[in-house]
Amino acid sequence: MLDVIRQLSKETPSKIVMVVLDGVGGLPLTTNGETELATATTPNLDALARESQLGLVELVGAGITPGSGPGHLSLFGYDPIQYTVGRGALSAVGIGVKLSAGDVAVRGNFATLDAGRNVLDRRAGRPSDEENVRVVAKLREAIPDIGGVPVEIYTESEHRFVVVFRAQGRPLGADVSDVDPQATGVTPMEAKAFDPASERTADLVNAFVARAEDALRNEPKINGVLFRGYSDVPHFPSFPDVYHVRSACIASYPMYKGLASLVGMEVLDVEGHEDALEGKVAALQANWDKYDFFYFHVKKTDSTGEDGNFDAKVHKIEDFDALLPSILELGPDVIAIVGDHSTPSKLATHSWHPVPLLIKSEWGRKDVAQRFTEEEAQKGSLGLRRGTDIMPLLMANALKLNKYGA
Amino acid sequence: MLDVIRQLSKETPSKIVMVVLDGVGGLPLTTNGETELATATTPNLDALARESQLGLVELVGAGITPGSGPGHLSLFGYDPIQYTVGRGALSAVGIGVKLSAGDVAVRGNFATLDAGRNVLDRRAGRPSDEENVRVVAKLREAIPDIGGVPVEIYTESEHRFVVVFRAQGRPLGADVSDVDPQATGVTPMEAKAFDPASERTADLVNAFVARAEDALRNEPKINGVLFRGYSDVPHFPSFPDVYHVRSACIASYPMYKGLASLVGMEVLDVEGHEDALEGKVAALQANWDKYDFFYFHVKKTDSTGEDGNFDAKVHKIEDFDALLPSILELGPDVIAIVGDHSTPSKLATHSWHPVPLLIKSEWGRKDVAQRFTEEEAQKGSLGLRRGTDIMPLLMANALKLNKYGA
Repeated sequence: MLDVIRQLSKETPSKIVMVVLDGVGGLPLTTNGETELATATTPNLDALARESQLGLVELVGAGITPGSGPGHLSLFGYDPIQYTVGRGALSAVGIGVKLSAGDVAVRGNFATLDAGRNVLDRRAGRPSDEENVRVVAKLREAIPDIGGVPVEIYTESEHRFVVVFRAQGRPLGADVSDVDPQATGVTPMEAKAFDPASERTADLVNAFVARAEDALRNEPKINGVLFRGYSDVPHFPSFPDVYHVRSACIASYPMYKGLASLVGMEVLDVEGHEDALEGKVAALQANWDKYDFFYFHVKKTDSTGEDGNFDAKVHKIEDFDALLPSILELGPDVIAIVGDHSTPSKLATHSWHPVPLLIKSEWGRKDVAQRFTEEEAQKGSLGLRRGTDIMPLLMANALKLNKYGA
Repeated sequence: MLDVIRQLSKETPSKIVMVVLDGVGGLPLTTNGETELATATTPNLDALARESQLGLVELVGAGITPGSGPGHLSLFGYDPIQYTVGRGALSAVGIGVKLSAGDVAVRGNFATLDAGRNVLDRRAGRPSDEENVRVVAKLREAIPDIGGVPVEIYTESEHRFVVVFRAQGRPLGADVSDVDPQATGVTPMEAKAFDPASERTADLVNAFVARAEDALRNEPKINGVLFRGYSDVPHFPSFPDVYHVRSACIASYPMYKGLASLVGMEVLDVEGHEDALEGKVAALQANWDKYDFFYFHVKKTDSTGEDGNFDAKVHKIEDFDALLPSILELGPDVIAIVGDHSTPSKLATHSWHPVPLLIKSEWGRKDVAQRFTEEEAQKGSLGLRRGTDIMPLLMANALKLNKYGA
């Protein structure tokens, strides 16, 4: 389908804004109660909803809870079952590390081993981020390279870290077995290559494990490393190439900037701390003439949901509502508001529930939905759809797609 | 899926009528206004809708605007991404030319060239059909064959014509570059083969261009030919074979007769000019006992939409409403009313918007939809579906499908 879209796409001056309210879909706290979206006071979203098309989207599939990676890939039009980003690569892009073709990124856990190398704690007592940074510094000094292959080590958070083996022209395979035994009382496993292209990588991993244990032998808690999730660099059709748009990402968290850059969007600078909504609007205004497609990411609707804080999530929705007029003032030809998954405060984690989708353009039909809520979206004219339908619908509404066949 | 349907299909005496109101889906002219269907006074359609199942269909996919070919293939149950008909073949079948395996059909435009062979007008001033027929006769005399390969030349309309190179046992490839430069002030391009199987075809095309220019050198306006869209013959599973029905096409425009004949339907004679609705009903009545499946095509709902004439489209819908009772009188076991795509007058061209679908049979559930309109169809029990769902639903409602699996 991406190939079909690529063939039908054409450059036009029309502008599309896709606002992603991360994890915005919710659940009522009590039976027949209201969700976060329905509880929030959102005059601007309500007014927009009354003149828009609404519907619901499942980003990956029925019952499937999307991670941020698959959720966003689906929003960008990439079938998240077909196009996958490995855990290692996702962690790397999530902390802002650029990967090049042939590199391998690996997800690591710090662990506690006993004298016989048996795993005592697979997460080394969940160290603080500061502890993690201290230990990573030690490892960086001890393992700058292995046999000439540059090794980069990055803190992710708590017990999680990322290792990147740089290919430097000699591509490394990523089909390697786990070091993490996913159990205590047993020793870490030896990494084995599943194909010839990954044999060097397995050797690098095993050497890393030995040298890390050596460097950390005097640490009381963090004295072992476990690996799981090796990835090479995913090769996706480029977003600007598929859709024939100059595309920009406006986000402040590394994961989302990483995903956007992975598909080929340009990542704009955003001033401010954390979600920095005003900084994001300023970036949108400053770059309005330079791009045709803007991915505009709002994070806090998800974080508050993950915290299980219903009221805080309601407030974050209202915060977005307050700045919506400054986006609409720019006069986008098509604006979409959607989430990459639901994060109901009641569950305090991502969920499988469909996410409301709003599309406003000149080319909409009458739609009875009155608000941007789960309940109203279900009455909307867009129906219940897959996330990968969104980009073709936005492109069509921007009159950026030619007819298919004569 | 077609294979599954083929295995489940059985012959029964039940009769299905699929009415295709070409381009019937529309848009309101103003926000929250009514579409053409909702504006039209349609007492007979309304009465039928109240006792039918309604829903909406996307013929190709979300956001994709179907051409007539893909739209109809989807209605007939053929996934239009998998089953494609080239422009040349579509034009050839559109004027009633039968193609055999190995033949190549090419779409041509008559053009005006200046003394230096530069294109002055890619459509030769849009000649009348009579002019086209006159020039085609001249070319037929000048180019009966090229190096023994029989050449057939047909008028399509205005500046458009079709050339068929007959393979006669030596299959011709169709992967050839365009002659049409799609610009004025430059010379026609030389056709080049993209694969070895198409090299003879490229030679035939270039020889045709030279001989045509020679034959037309004294013509004031039509003195050049441009080619674009070469196709070999598509191979589709046969409609009567898949569905085990005796199937008939009742249409008056060549394109639709051609598409129906391409999938193996029998094309019935229709008396009258243009849309000839009375003639179509007469053909349906006269052939009622001879077939189990009738594809009944109404063109003017699309043409008026393409003209951007909202009121005229409304009237054409009302014209169809007036003759609906004479179709229903025949007592079809299943009648479907649907379009092959939307053609909103507001856009004056095909569009991606879902098309209403109505299915009436003895085996329907309660359905709240009160009229055959986009808004009511959205409330209907059939939901929002792909076009390829229609044929299985009609077959099921006609009790022509066996159970799948034990």
